[in-house]
Amino acid sequence: MPTFIDALTAALPAGRVLTDAESLVAYGYDGGTLLDGAPAAVVQVREEAEVIAALRIAQETRTPVFPRGAASGLAGGSVPRGGIALNFAPMRTILELDEDSLMVTVEPGVVTADLQAAVEARGLCYPPDPASLKQSTIGGNVATGAGGPRCLKYGTTREYVRGIRAVLPGGAVIRDGGAYLKSAVGYNLSQLFVGSEGTLGALTQVTLRLIPKPPAVGTVMALFPQLEDAAAIVTRILRAGILPSVLEFMDKACLHCIEHAAKLGLPAGVEAFILIECDGQPAAVEAELARVVALCAAGGASVVERATDDETREKLWTARRSVSPSLGRLKPSKLGEDISLPRRAIVPMVRRIQQIAEAYDVLLPTFGHIGDGNLHPNLVFDPRDAAEMARVSQAAEALIRAAVEHGGTLSGEHGIGLLKKDLLPLAVPAENLDLYRRLKAVFDPAGIMNPGKVFSLAVTRD
Amino acid sequence: MPTFIDALTAALPAGRVLTDAESLVAYGYDGGTLLDGAPAAVVQVREEAEVIAALRIAQETRTPVFPRGAASGLAGGSVPRGGIALNFAPMRTILELDEDSLMVTVEPGVVTADLQAAVEARGLCYPPDPASLKQSTIGGNVATGAGGPRCLKYGTTREYVRGIRAVLPGGAVIRDGGAYLKSAVGYNLSQLFVGSEGTLGALTQVTLRLIPKPPAVGTVMALFPQLEDAAAIVTRILRAGILPSVLEFMDKACLHCIEHAAKLGLPAGVEAFILIECDGQPAAVEAELARVVALCAAGGASVVERATDDETREKLWTARRSVSPSLGRLKPSKLGEDISLPRRAIVPMVRRIQQIAEAYDVLLPTFGHIGDGNLHPNLVFDPRDAAEMARVSQAAEALIRAAVEHGGTLSGEHGIGLLKKDLLPLAVPAENLDLYRRLKAVFDPAGIMNPGKVFSLAVTRD
Repeated sequence: MPTFIDALTAALPAGRVLTDAESLVAYGYDGGTLLDGAPAAVVQVREEAEVIAALRIAQETRTPVFPRGAASGLAGGSVPRGGIALNFAPMRTILELDEDSLMVTVEPGVVTADLQAAVEARGLCYPPDPASLKQSTIGGNVATGAGGPRCLKYGTTREYVRGIRAVLPGGAVIRDGGAYLKSAVGYNLSQLFVGSEGTLGALTQVTLRLIPKPPAVGTVMALFPQLEDAAAIVTRILRAGILPSVLEFMDKACLHCIEHAAKLGLPAGVEAFILIECDGQPAAVEAELARVVALCAAGGASVVERATDDETREKLWTARRSVSPSLGRLKPSKLGEDISLPRRAIVPMVRRIQQIAEAYDVLLPTFGHIGDGNLHPNLVFDPRDAAEMARVSQAAEALIRAAVEHGGTLSGEHGIGLLKKDLLPLAVPAENLDLYRRLKAVFDPAGIMNPGKVFSLAVTRD
Repeated sequence: MPTFIDALTAALPAGRVLTDAESLVAYGYDGGTLLDGAPAAVVQVREEAEVIAALRIAQETRTPVFPRGAASGLAGGSVPRGGIALNFAPMRTILELDEDSLMVTVEPGVVTADLQAAVEARGLCYPPDPASLKQSTIGGNVATGAGGPRCLKYGTTREYVRGIRAVLPGGAVIRDGGAYLKSAVGYNLSQLFVGSEGTLGALTQVTLRLIPKPPAVGTVMALFPQLEDAAAIVTRILRAGILPSVLEFMDKACLHCIEHAAKLGLPAGVEAFILIECDGQPAAVEAELARVVALCAAGGASVVERATDDETREKLWTARRSVSPSLGRLKPSKLGEDISLPRRAIVPMVRRIQQIAEAYDVLLPTFGHIGDGNLHPNLVFDPRDAAEMARVSQAAEALIRAAVEHGGTLSGEHGIGLLKKDLLPLAVPAENLDLYRRLKAVFDPAGIMNPGKVFSLAVTRD
């Protein structure tokens, strides 16, 4: 048994270090990609002192550390490759909810939905809403820079992080920022940790800003026979001075899958499904929804429905919420891409996605956050079909190349992790990869924090 | 004449390198602090190729480079100390305004107000509004992470930066991000440059997100005999689900100064002046203003006035806009502090500021952005009075210590520059200063970019 396991077992309370076969399997894969790789040990941490002990021992023994929250990420960022799977899920305390300052400080294992429920009970709101929010943790959200539908109006996790505590390899604790909104003090270490995917250090506390809960919300669903009309409506809504909280999109292929799987009775001949939400003061929401309905009706929509009560709103969301399960019924596996684009590139990119699907003979239903230019083309496939797998892999690369050609990039809210690491050089210049390596070395000179994720530690020009 | 000046003169077009005595004086000080330090040469850059040439020569000759835009910063960040004053003011082209994507790409010398006017002419809005916006440049705004009154609702410059091009010492060009809203791709180099105060490299392009211009805006001014009542109203407004675009504050000492200098006829016995703006759809603005007026009237305000037309709004702003000129008439010099606090610390901190003013026998009128916890206590003094100067310096340190005690920090939107460099260790742990030095070295191993600003390059534990 390796020395580091003995040292961890001696340093931590009983029951924290797991090496039984079952635990190594259970903490060896993630829920988002089903990639796997067994750790040598699982360490359950309950407080910062234990994180310090673990990262001291890891540094001394040059053992790789793979932090994880709920392992619900969609890029394999939490999948271990030997070493220590450092599980933050037990650190799930909301440490301080300061209602007057509209700030909350939490441990990294707090589940996103639990935080939202806790602050909503006080009339406040934590806007970032990744699809995995019922499983995902705040630590994971910060590590990936998680987004979600409401990020058009409210921004991603990045915009909410105001302070961190983190443990670096070797056990040093750093603090940055705090429960204040604005800071112009030195390099913003908190922001550097956002999106760093566990490669710099391990978060032990995060301070997040909150907003007053918008008192009203309303929803409009619109179906467009022409994609171009739908995209034009998005522009017209924004140019009318309306900033919806949500502006979601599904393409024809998604609608086909949903109808096939869920039989919702969606009409045929629809090229784009659009879901729009506005929130704020009730009078403003009413006025904005009326304007949105009028714009959609005059702009080529064949069906327009609106709702302000929760029950009808939920019905309008049904189709959108059905898309992921529906895709799962089509083929055994899927690979959700996450391209982020200038908004004006949406139409040409969706057309290009359709061409790529045809050229590589793959299924490529696309949905996403059309309001902020973040699309999720989903490669749906059977992993037992080697020929299809090869085509899927080529199509994935073609997608990223097309996104970059259109002025975009390969991830808007999922991160790079293991899944997109080999494609990263398509979107990021080699000089940036060199800077990434040198930035990582400032925090993690031995390269033990989540090694092999995002970029290669070895300097190999691509 | 030093070699680097010959090399610059040979490499750049005629007229770009200035070494005449007048230019060295003109580019030797800033407008915000009146600190000065003569450069050996001024280099006027008009395009990126010239920045590359300058930073290549600077690196080869180990010449310090001091980038500047309008030099309107309030912390001395652009003041040279020998070397090259690199003036970006001539790079003032708006390169691309993409109305469909709500994105704009600009050169760093574009003046903030010029950008705002250009996008407002198209029905769009660039919200960050530092007080210096008629002089300040976008490059400077990014370098300091500039804020302003509208940042409560809309966030500071940081929240708008989506992409950069920058030249590093030696002349390498890096690109990060782009004209898309969301990115979860590697370390966010753009965000690292925000607030870096010219210490990492020289920006040559910045891509900023825009928002639809809010169609309506309205203003409420309220005067409170009791500070505590004013602070309670701020909380009540936010808790009512209203997020004002502006929530400004002035204390009794400011009101006294304004009345003395401008004779606006403000009533006596007022401890807090509050200015609130709401923007959005007209119906929502009306509803929110009505609620704000009712809350103020029921919450202890002695005077409450509202306005939705521009002329009356301007009148309500008169007192707030008079504060800086009024302070200037009180004593020859002022030092504007910029503490950022958890919102709930506002009342105890304002009380503490009053105690510090008494204890050190200094004038310390305070105004600021009460909605986001960012206060500007202004030390007003006569620099010819050595005894007063000593008390001012002690009071400044006491202020920062008190802000940190209350969970805050020393700068919300001005930056550290030269002015607050010695006070930085009061707010930031020594470990962070070490990380700053090592982060800087990743981009600027020779330490030639704006050296001596923000933190000391030499590792001296404070």
